[in-house]
Amino acid sequence: MQADAMVLLDGVNVDVPPSWIRPGAAIICCEPTLETDEHTFGMSSKSGLGYLTAAYRTHNVVRSCSRWLREQQYRPWRLHSLKLQPLTPVPSDIEISRAQTPKPVTQLAEEIGLLPEELEAYGRNKAKVRLSLLDRLHSQPDGKYVLVAGITPTPLGEGKSTVTIGLVQAMSAHLKHNSFACLRQPSQGPTFGVKGGAAGGGYAQVIPMEEFNLHLTGDIHAITAANNLVAAAIDARMLHEATQSDKALFNRLVPSVNGVRSFSPIQISRLRRLGIFKTDPAALSMQEISTFVRLDLDPSKITWQRVVDTNDRFLRKITVGQASTEKGQIRETGFDIAVASEIMAILALADSLEDMKNRLARMVVGTSRSGQPVTAEDLGVSGALAVLMKDAIKPTLMQTLEGSPVFVHAGPFANIAHGNSSVLADKLALKLVGRDGFVVTEAGFGADIGMEKFFNIKCRASGLRPNVVVLVATVRALKMHGGGPNVSAGAPLPREYIDENLSLVAGGCRSNLKKQIQIAHLFGVPVVVALNVFKTDTQAEIDLVCQIAKECGASDAVPCHHWAQGGRGSVELAKAVDEAANRPSNFQFLYNTEMPIVEKIRTIARKVYGADDVELSPEAKSKIDYYNQQGYGSLPICMAKTHLSLSHMPEKKGAPTGFVLPIRDVRASVGAGFIYPLVGTMSTMPGLPTRPCFYDIDLDPVTEEITGLF
Amino acid sequence: MQADAMVLLDGVNVDVPPSWIRPGAAIICCEPTLETDEHTFGMSSKSGLGYLTAAYRTHNVVRSCSRWLREQQYRPWRLHSLKLQPLTPVPSDIEISRAQTPKPVTQLAEEIGLLPEELEAYGRNKAKVRLSLLDRLHSQPDGKYVLVAGITPTPLGEGKSTVTIGLVQAMSAHLKHNSFACLRQPSQGPTFGVKGGAAGGGYAQVIPMEEFNLHLTGDIHAITAANNLVAAAIDARMLHEATQSDKALFNRLVPSVNGVRSFSPIQISRLRRLGIFKTDPAALSMQEISTFVRLDLDPSKITWQRVVDTNDRFLRKITVGQASTEKGQIRETGFDIAVASEIMAILALADSLEDMKNRLARMVVGTSRSGQPVTAEDLGVSGALAVLMKDAIKPTLMQTLEGSPVFVHAGPFANIAHGNSSVLADKLALKLVGRDGFVVTEAGFGADIGMEKFFNIKCRASGLRPNVVVLVATVRALKMHGGGPNVSAGAPLPREYIDENLSLVAGGCRSNLKKQIQIAHLFGVPVVVALNVFKTDTQAEIDLVCQIAKECGASDAVPCHHWAQGGRGSVELAKAVDEAANRPSNFQFLYNTEMPIVEKIRTIARKVYGADDVELSPEAKSKIDYYNQQGYGSLPICMAKTHLSLSHMPEKKGAPTGFVLPIRDVRASVGAGFIYPLVGTMSTMPGLPTRPCFYDIDLDPVTEEITGLF
Repeated sequence: MQADAMVLLDGVNVDVPPSWIRPGAAIICCEPTLETDEHTFGMSSKSGLGYLTAAYRTHNVVRSCSRWLREQQYRPWRLHSLKLQPLTPVPSDIEISRAQTPKPVTQLAEEIGLLPEELEAYGRNKAKVRLSLLDRLHSQPDGKYVLVAGITPTPLGEGKSTVTIGLVQAMSAHLKHNSFACLRQPSQGPTFGVKGGAAGGGYAQVIPMEEFNLHLTGDIHAITAANNLVAAAIDARMLHEATQSDKALFNRLVPSVNGVRSFSPIQISRLRRLGIFKTDPAALSMQEISTFVRLDLDPSKITWQRVVDTNDRFLRKITVGQASTEKGQIRETGFDIAVASEIMAILALADSLEDMKNRLARMVVGTSRSGQPVTAEDLGVSGALAVLMKDAIKPTLMQTLEGSPVFVHAGPFANIAHGNSSVLADKLALKLVGRDGFVVTEAGFGADIGMEKFFNIKCRASGLRPNVVVLVATVRALKMHGGGPNVSAGAPLPREYIDENLSLVAGGCRSNLKKQIQIAHLFGVPVVVALNVFKTDTQAEIDLVCQIAKECGASDAVPCHHWAQGGRGSVELAKAVDEAANRPSNFQFLYNTEMPIVEKIRTIARKVYGADDVELSPEAKSKIDYYNQQGYGSLPICMAKTHLSLSHMPEKKGAPTGFVLPIRDVRASVGAGFIYPLVGTMSTMPGLPTRPCFYDIDLDPVTEEITGLF
Repeated sequence: MQADAMVLLDGVNVDVPPSWIRPGAAIICCEPTLETDEHTFGMSSKSGLGYLTAAYRTHNVVRSCSRWLREQQYRPWRLHSLKLQPLTPVPSDIEISRAQTPKPVTQLAEEIGLLPEELEAYGRNKAKVRLSLLDRLHSQPDGKYVLVAGITPTPLGEGKSTVTIGLVQAMSAHLKHNSFACLRQPSQGPTFGVKGGAAGGGYAQVIPMEEFNLHLTGDIHAITAANNLVAAAIDARMLHEATQSDKALFNRLVPSVNGVRSFSPIQISRLRRLGIFKTDPAALSMQEISTFVRLDLDPSKITWQRVVDTNDRFLRKITVGQASTEKGQIRETGFDIAVASEIMAILALADSLEDMKNRLARMVVGTSRSGQPVTAEDLGVSGALAVLMKDAIKPTLMQTLEGSPVFVHAGPFANIAHGNSSVLADKLALKLVGRDGFVVTEAGFGADIGMEKFFNIKCRASGLRPNVVVLVATVRALKMHGGGPNVSAGAPLPREYIDENLSLVAGGCRSNLKKQIQIAHLFGVPVVVALNVFKTDTQAEIDLVCQIAKECGASDAVPCHHWAQGGRGSVELAKAVDEAANRPSNFQFLYNTEMPIVEKIRTIARKVYGADDVELSPEAKSKIDYYNQQGYGSLPICMAKTHLSLSHMPEKKGAPTGFVLPIRDVRASVGAGFIYPLVGTMSTMPGLPTRPCFYDIDLDPVTEEITGLF
């Protein structure tokens, strides 16, 4: 049995294995300890207490003490690392994943200090972790909080997920720091579309990668179900209101059950919002009944869309209600991909079940004909949404190829939403790693988008403060920013990206990389640049990036080889992060939320994007006025901007200046809790190409092995 | 440690606890046994074999013998029953469910003889069971196979699920027979719509009922994802074909990777179906390329619909493709509720992973402009579908209120599909209960629909043969068939249904009940009538039903009180079923599949429904010709008929005669493997009422308790 916690009792060190200090566990072979303890606590069998009673009491004291100590002290995990023997050339992602046998998730959970009752296993390799952990470890100090962000990427992506996973593999398996990766759950759409999975890649992966990339523990499915229940409720309600009198609606909404009519709690809430403080249905005036039963949604002002977790471009714009049973109530609407649902953004920002439930109730689905916002609670559906989402709120525990723990939780869009994994996963992980441990979390897109939202939206919601930013760069993206030719998915890479070209690299470093470092410094957080090395990169190019990055203010800059080597290839990065985490971080928000909406937008545009100013369309201006009037003026801002440039113009690489950022429209996710200005048009539903990924995906029905996932 | 299997070795009975006879388990405290065994097998430490070696060999022999014995013999489970103390009046379903603490599913699994490696826990209360169990218990004889069907129901339903659960509670907890319930997974649509959940009710429930009624283990979500991936693939493919030349399509579908073009396995399959036996892409003629790359789907003949697991009536008929990015390729289509997907029917009928994969590949999604069927495999998507469905194929283990095992698996619609739970769950359960055990499975709607399809479709697919039919009746439904006034959901029940009325009861028994018993006898299976007693039923009514049922040929007829009393209230039913199961059953199909399609339809209409004949629309006739020509002529028939009458006219109660059954149209589910004639219009997407169930559903964020589910 492995000793787990050192308990100091009257000068005697007692090794306490984890199974002793769990509630309800039996005491095994502990007589010597008990004798010591009896002496320590002034009890003996002569005192009149029976030996067993004394033993039991003592055991309880030991248990309490050791638990308290566990909670207060940094406790290095006895993490069993999985050995890696990287092959050259690097095999496919699914081959690498399949070649490694993960530890049972119950074992991993025990290694990192979870109690069995805090775990809900989903098969052998995944488990949901209960939020009660936060109460148990309430007084435990948090670990160091590391954000992985990136420079402005090419359309091919620059590998933030692999850097995140590689860094944690290095920290855990090689430097023996407690460390945790927090990742977003990927949408199934891209998995079967163009992009493939998102479990990392090469020797920096979450395993089993197919479980990560497919249904996982059903969170996105729960979001889809909840989102679409709201949509069905909206259209059905409009139909019923259009075809029934106030009285008929009231009789159905507040039915007489055994001769008694009463409002449900959700209806009482609506009445209060309407300023009606009666609780007896019979006491309502005809006018009050009418106000209560009619949401009076304006069909042209419904903002709620349906979702599917499939790249289904034909659902971008549709007409619904064309069957004769819907009596001509047709209207245009559309589907988004599931991860673009506001419910996904809520899942990522909620910090408790109660907070999630309240946010779900506040979601605004459209506007009434008289201009009032209509919420999910007005539809009577918010309790059911919380029920549908009650398991989704628990983060899913998995592991890396080297056996380090990973939370997978939430994955909101990074344009119309904030593009970060969940607050709750980060909080749980920070408690589990303890004071000197590390939690590495990832923000979507470039630092101007994902990191800015991480700081201004996610950290504001969570109250957590980051210690270090890891800024991921590639020679490929730097060359693009330095003036290299266009890079596009599907087309072969131009020669500039394959041959050494120091001047393009330098150009990219002195423009985009420098600007992204400066953005992190705006928030007062130290930056380590991680150069994700590709096999075509030359040593001179690598050295140049590291040199300029440091000149531009990075605490350090190191090349990483996690893709080909696993954690071993990221040890230098891990050391640099460890060092930077010990530097002072003077975190500050970029803006105060009490500033006027337009000023918050202008602050981001100028300071982060480098714009001279912003220009608002009349539509945007009137929306801002409306939101101010509705009391949403102090929400933070979530810019919906292209990720392919610091500006709003995807073709402008490097660090553009001298532009005015156009704000086409402004929308609000009231439940998630942000205003999102639209800079250009955002697609919220990808499409399938002529030959989607699914052509190569197959299952061997005998071995049950999957092929073709990447 | 509980003794588990009795192993007879050289006249010495050895109790073998389950942990001894599991591969890799340690031998504990078994020296005495080993000494006996050594003697038995003529080994001793003097023979030159070391004691440990001898012990090890002997242990292996004991293990093999005991496993063989376990597989051959009826082994009564040591099932730990959960005690019930029914309250009066009966509390709400969720209150009853919550008041009972289920056994850990791992304990239940061990009690019924599952090995740990055959189980994939999903939290504490649910687990998927691996299909490898079928191989391990290959030579184990099956238990008795009991089907629960019903008379023609009122729109309120007559309680087949509660009878099924109550019967298994009685069998397991009170009569100590090994027994298993196999249930369908309910759609979430009705749970939040009108009907509520489907976990049984009162003191005959599957617990925890909220886990049963919500996401369960994600099977319906997997079906939704798979179904909608097919739909997205159809529309995207039509767009790409409409906008690209043959050459461009070919270059994209068979891309050059590092200078090499090759077909994927799924493309080779398509080429073979087209009669092209080349494997080198360069060898195809221009004509062959064109044939290969163009599915040439006729937009007006696409039969594949999208699905959601929500009652969303506005999606019944929609227009898709209206965004400018889809270049004017708009078309009308619709969504069905997820359980109406052909993939659900396939899940329920597949008897292995390979069978499921083949069925998914064969699904026909529409017809080409030249009249050829286009399959999921033609779209290149069938491997991905199998991957999405690989976990859904494993049945989910849960338990009843009294701790008896339940499989929940699949839940196809009972009109356009066959309305029965899965073949695989039944097969696994029959092996687990062993020769003298009981598996109780349930068919949707009345016996004329669900039972007929159970016999002619499900038993044909599975090869299993039923021993007994339990026919569920209620005094309420019998009165309706005897001439009582209309019964409708939402309206108060007329007095005839509350006061004693023996003549209405007798009328119903001598018409509908008699006919449904005769239908079961057509298939050669004995019938036990289960009268699901309501509190308004009088003793005289109850006695009359039981008397007439026996006069009409039922082996027995018994009143059941499971709703108010749990298993204790169904003990008489359990005894009657036990007795009937020992009578000879001469099971036979109603028709030979080689008969012409129209003859198969006519046989069902005449013999089962009591029609004089059938009348086919010209549309139906031409479809039958087309299906014959495509080689689908020998598929069994799945009638899509109202469940509210034996005829096609919902208002005709009792046992109508003298009618001609009109066949409006005929369709095919080629993957699931049946032809479905449409008798009238079938809604495949329910709607939400003015006040859906969700108004009362809520979650306490502190206790995490759900309220309002029923």
